[in-house]
Amino acid sequence: MLFDRVWFHARLATLVGDSLGVVEDGAVAAKDGRIAYAGPARDLPTGWDATERIDCDGRWITPGLVDCHTHLVFGGDRAHEFELRLKGASYEEIARAGGGIVSTVKATRAASEDDLVATALPRLDHLIAEGCTTVEVKSGYGLDLDTEARVLRAARRLGEERPVSIATTFLGAHALPPEADGDKDAYIAKVCADMLPILAREGLADAVDAFCEGIAFSPEQTARVFDTAKALGLAVKLHADQLSNLHGAKLAAEFGALSADHLEYTDDEGAAAMAKAGTVAVLLPGAFYTLRETKMPPVAAFRQHGVRMALATDCNPGTSPLTSLLLAMNMGATLFRMNVEECLAGVTREAARALGRLDEIGTLEPGKSCDLAIWNIERPAELVYRLGFNPLHKRIWRGQ
Amino acid sequence: MLFDRVWFHARLATLVGDSLGVVEDGAVAAKDGRIAYAGPARDLPTGWDATERIDCDGRWITPGLVDCHTHLVFGGDRAHEFELRLKGASYEEIARAGGGIVSTVKATRAASEDDLVATALPRLDHLIAEGCTTVEVKSGYGLDLDTEARVLRAARRLGEERPVSIATTFLGAHALPPEADGDKDAYIAKVCADMLPILAREGLADAVDAFCEGIAFSPEQTARVFDTAKALGLAVKLHADQLSNLHGAKLAAEFGALSADHLEYTDDEGAAAMAKAGTVAVLLPGAFYTLRETKMPPVAAFRQHGVRMALATDCNPGTSPLTSLLLAMNMGATLFRMNVEECLAGVTREAARALGRLDEIGTLEPGKSCDLAIWNIERPAELVYRLGFNPLHKRIWRGQ
Ligand SMILES: [Zn+2]
Ligand SMILES: [Zn+2]
Repeated sequence: MLFDRVWFHARLATLVGDSLGVVEDGAVAAKDGRIAYAGPARDLPTGWDATERIDCDGRWITPGLVDCHTHLVFGGDRAHEFELRLKGASYEEIARAGGGIVSTVKATRAASEDDLVATALPRLDHLIAEGCTTVEVKSGYGLDLDTEARVLRAARRLGEERPVSIATTFLGAHALPPEADGDKDAYIAKVCADMLPILAREGLADAVDAFCEGIAFSPEQTARVFDTAKALGLAVKLHADQLSNLHGAKLAAEFGALSADHLEYTDDEGAAAMAKAGTVAVLLPGAFYTLRETKMPPVAAFRQHGVRMALATDCNPGTSPLTSLLLAMNMGATLFRMNVEECLAGVTREAARALGRLDEIGTLEPGKSCDLAIWNIERPAELVYRLGFNPLHKRIWRGQ
Repeated sequence: MLFDRVWFHARLATLVGDSLGVVEDGAVAAKDGRIAYAGPARDLPTGWDATERIDCDGRWITPGLVDCHTHLVFGGDRAHEFELRLKGASYEEIARAGGGIVSTVKATRAASEDDLVATALPRLDHLIAEGCTTVEVKSGYGLDLDTEARVLRAARRLGEERPVSIATTFLGAHALPPEADGDKDAYIAKVCADMLPILAREGLADAVDAFCEGIAFSPEQTARVFDTAKALGLAVKLHADQLSNLHGAKLAAEFGALSADHLEYTDDEGAAAMAKAGTVAVLLPGAFYTLRETKMPPVAAFRQHGVRMALATDCNPGTSPLTSLLLAMNMGATLFRMNVEECLAGVTREAARALGRLDEIGTLEPGKSCDLAIWNIERPAELVYRLGFNPLHKRIWRGQ
């Protein structure tokens, strides 16, 4: 067997099955961009050879990290709003100063595709520098067909500009655009009748998301979006139960959603429904931290019911200007009391599952894309324990 | 006037006086490693010339960042303890597994000076990569003369291995060493009689610190250490009021301490005393966050009394494995509600003041060391607002 590359003298956390899948004297072999072997070095097929052999000097190899929930592409920033809020400005004063989500919608609409790519790249580069090999990107700051399409095209282009896999999600039902004049039903009708079919036809969206919340859309409106998505053959996910319990988790489960995300207010019934449907709980501690929330997502209930948990940055300009999955892991542990194994699975295997891509990425298994993160650490816990430190030695995407 | 280097087309936050000191079209000139000019470009002395001119393309220049409270030099790490704790292990179980501060003392004693330098460098490099130009390093994991001296020598060596200024602080009164058998007074006597005079004579400590807390040393024991330090002509600082109110802030003020640090439980009287003494409040949100504390330091009282506030990483293996001043700023804002100006002053001007080095570093003023951080940002608030992102363009230390 002639491999393209073999990494040896490595410790592996394969994440296969339900554990870290630790292999002490491990090796990973790549062929044509895919994992050809991952496991104990002694079990490499006899007579193997490789074009390139890489001595890892005992470093750890994990699957490349997966950020399964971001709003990475947007115009402008909200630093000024953050500054005003710290000075005690009220929401009204901030709105008068041009702040809030409307300001991001305005800046995003004013931005060209090139602008959107250019401003997203430094954020993407930071994720990549920490070993990220797949990033999900949502639209939702356009809120009209043209801009939503432009954002999704910009997201796709990020995957051409950088060696990284991009998953796109259409989040038209993120907020009500200013021109909708308060008519949520009419806007949702537009999302379903005009936006979704066209974006689906153009292949711009891998999945469809919505924000089900008092300040956004109702469960009924969400269900209309999901019905349309399903009819078009698109997978769904949901921003659910972040600020109140509208039973969004249960709704997501009823639609067989890939994931329900945030979930601070999800109840036991919601957790049970998610477990039954195989819907992944995507926890977003960056938003919890930034908003200084105190209601924690029901991690114990998720464990008890067997709901899989992922962690993501939720990178967005308003409530989580976070571009570090390492920090998301630390916050998952420190703020949500997830353990080390849950945190690591949360940014690899379970994040892949939340994107419907577990057959392709998320663990070190033969046949999957050879996406690796190689770390200067002595034990996996270091990836979660440290704050504001990047021990990445090297990132491999598709075998390179 | 012939300068060595002039940075022009820059926006400056000089931090001079009591504000950010914003200069929109600014320039900084260096001569012999010192700032020769910092201010509006149009006010550069007529007929100036420079060996090198650097166009900053509108980027922002701040003083190089100052981390005024770290325990950067230590042996081992505590990732495993972190992991056990997340699994619900009790303090006893962790102690049995070799955890706690004793484990760091053991690992530090077992480490050579070279080991200590080698393991501290990646942490230092992360601080440097974010624009840090001065770092304070405390001893306190040796707890015997040999090891404390070795840690302080290792700290000094960091400043030879990297282009960065190091301030050393002797923290012999950090914890009781295991061999002291519970006799705190006897250990403090040793600190005062044996350790302090020798370390002072060898010039290894720029200042003296202690940990005044129920789990550490009493105010009386702290005062003994401070009396000795003062007699030796050394400045003092104090870990004060972190977990309870032993009136450590007031004690520090009475000794004219450069700073009192942590201060979650400091009361109004303590704040008033600090203001009067000019003692800087060094706030350490990384430890607050990691320990999941809920009692916030009295920021409002500090403002009201005019106590200067600094922010630092408190980088240490047990309670704040943090190596990012940018993240410390975000936490200062998010967790302690410090505003943008306070956060930025806290890692520049006020951090310099907390080290007694304000005449040398901390602001952009002629005569000071030309330590600069040049940032890819549109406004200073971005440095505080973002999470897990490093917009540093270039760091300058002593004019280079
Ligand atoms: Zn989101
Ligand atoms: Zn400390």
